[in-house]
Amino acid sequence: MNKETFPLTPLSKFGKIELTNHLMKKYAGKQSEKNNEQEIATIALEHKEIATNSSLLIENIHFDLSYFPLKHLGFKAVVGCVSKFYGHNLQAKAITVSVGVSNRFSLEALEDLFEGIQTSCEAYNIDLTAIEVTSSNKGLIVCINAFSDVDQSALVSKNTSSEGDLVVVTGDLGGAYLGLQVLKREKAVFEVNPTSQPDLNTYKYIVQRQLKPSARKDMIELLASLEVKPTAMSAMSDGLASELAQISKKSKLGFAIYEDKMPIAPETLTVCEEFQLNPMTVVLNGGEDYELLFTISQNDYAKIKGNPHLTVIGHMTKEAEGTFLISKANQKIDLANNSFHEGA
Amino acid sequence: MNKETFPLTPLSKFGKIELTNHLMKKYAGKQSEKNNEQEIATIALEHKEIATNSSLLIENIHFDLSYFPLKHLGFKAVVGCVSKFYGHNLQAKAITVSVGVSNRFSLEALEDLFEGIQTSCEAYNIDLTAIEVTSSNKGLIVCINAFSDVDQSALVSKNTSSEGDLVVVTGDLGGAYLGLQVLKREKAVFEVNPTSQPDLNTYKYIVQRQLKPSARKDMIELLASLEVKPTAMSAMSDGLASELAQISKKSKLGFAIYEDKMPIAPETLTVCEEFQLNPMTVVLNGGEDYELLFTISQNDYAKIKGNPHLTVIGHMTKEAEGTFLISKANQKIDLANNSFHEGA
Repeated sequence: MNKETFPLTPLSKFGKIELTNHLMKKYAGKQSEKNNEQEIATIALEHKEIATNSSLLIENIHFDLSYFPLKHLGFKAVVGCVSKFYGHNLQAKAITVSVGVSNRFSLEALEDLFEGIQTSCEAYNIDLTAIEVTSSNKGLIVCINAFSDVDQSALVSKNTSSEGDLVVVTGDLGGAYLGLQVLKREKAVFEVNPTSQPDLNTYKYIVQRQLKPSARKDMIELLASLEVKPTAMSAMSDGLASELAQISKKSKLGFAIYEDKMPIAPETLTVCEEFQLNPMTVVLNGGEDYELLFTISQNDYAKIKGNPHLTVIGHMTKEAEGTFLISKANQKIDLANNSFHEGA
Repeated sequence: MNKETFPLTPLSKFGKIELTNHLMKKYAGKQSEKNNEQEIATIALEHKEIATNSSLLIENIHFDLSYFPLKHLGFKAVVGCVSKFYGHNLQAKAITVSVGVSNRFSLEALEDLFEGIQTSCEAYNIDLTAIEVTSSNKGLIVCINAFSDVDQSALVSKNTSSEGDLVVVTGDLGGAYLGLQVLKREKAVFEVNPTSQPDLNTYKYIVQRQLKPSARKDMIELLASLEVKPTAMSAMSDGLASELAQISKKSKLGFAIYEDKMPIAPETLTVCEEFQLNPMTVVLNGGEDYELLFTISQNDYAKIKGNPHLTVIGHMTKEAEGTFLISKANQKIDLANNSFHEGA
């Protein structure tokens, strides 16, 4: 039964408190009953220190609802927030969500958004502790605030890598960016010919990487089980080049990474050809893969060797040695001035 | 020296990271140096439980920059967030700020906003731990997330009042709403005659109540020093009627409050006359005063009696007795269906 065939419920039918209570009852986590009695959400912790981050997403700046379904938007918004904690080797604990919404949206649309948020919360064991809904004159605005309590013995920052440390990435890179290109192309085709039916089957993997990315909670758990604590770390919301530049700059080191080591999915490579893109351009500058990038001591190499989820792509060097990509043809490409991006 | 006479700096001159780092260095609290190395803000706590809330403010929905200066907007946005903690008898600890900003704004405008935020943080001993700036296609969007660690022995909720408890408010009520009416009237005059110079001197107190309200941190400290723990509590971001209705509904009680007890400033009364408004309409439905509303046991009455900051305005009754305002003419006005508002 497709609920779209029924008349949609206008948001104007609800007062602000009524709407918030409805969403809290339907989507909030274990603490919702308690929080319903208060204007603030309380969250129990294991440590006397918290970490927070906040992400503000604005329609037509950060997302385009013409090809990005609301359920996926909700799911991905949470992924973007919580992955930042995994990028510090911490577990995320709870989120609060503030939504600004115009009269263009129905209750059902808002519920789609929150269903995506809830699915993500379940996948990453996050408590949705508070919801605020307010009016917007300008489409949809979603602000997600995430919390973690800080286990100082686990916390990894970006400024603590050492010379000789190995550079490791999880999963594969570049897919999310290519998925976006496919969706944008289909949108352009649809605008010219509204009867066209997009066939996204050929692009299933990369479209999924864009619409329903994974935050790598599983990878920080894998590292813990392997007894590997990274020396520096980051979650890749941006491309590899800028994420690794942050680690190298903050740790006052250089690096060398190798084109022939890069984990790139077969579909990503095929579609790069179709779009006439250099796969390394996509990997270095693409973003939104949410994979983890980290460095480890060489002493830990044996622990991760051969693991299908983890790929060593290079090593950290002295700062004076610079920041380089070594191409398959053994050329040294300086990434300091992003020349690869410019020249590509 | 007025910086407005110098050319303003376009935001397009800055990258996102550069702009964030600039604002963090200039405005963030004690922990900023540490947080600059991380994408998440860490905050040390005294208790293993936190409380959070989040407030999303959208231009031309929640504020109008034609009469609301950016510095005051920043100040008031923090007041709105932290006052919710004071409304639970808790201290606020830290905030993170996410801002969406269009190219219409200059760096100086953004700095005005953050100067207001910083002034508020200093006034209430709040740590500004993280700043996120992102592009907006639609003017200014400000999302403030506030944190507190929860001292369970201090925490007061809305559902714990008892029959016979006294209803108390801090400060005086209705001023902020009237201040807004004055500012809106001046804006309308200015739109008709742009050479008009508003004379707000006569309205100094109420305009200040609107533009630079106080969060009553001082009042929860006063209550602690008087050894009074409220039985139920709320910060008044909305008018008295809806705030007291929340306490009565959640505590399953009725109440009787008295028109002749209401603390209303002389200027508020004068301007009510000018605008031909019934002062009680303003007090019951106005909002944005951010004063505290709470109930106390009659046993505590001696401790607060005669205190110039605290006014007993009525008492809680059995639920079946209903929710009433007793007028100066000794009429019982039922507030259950907000008839006073409708009839005024």
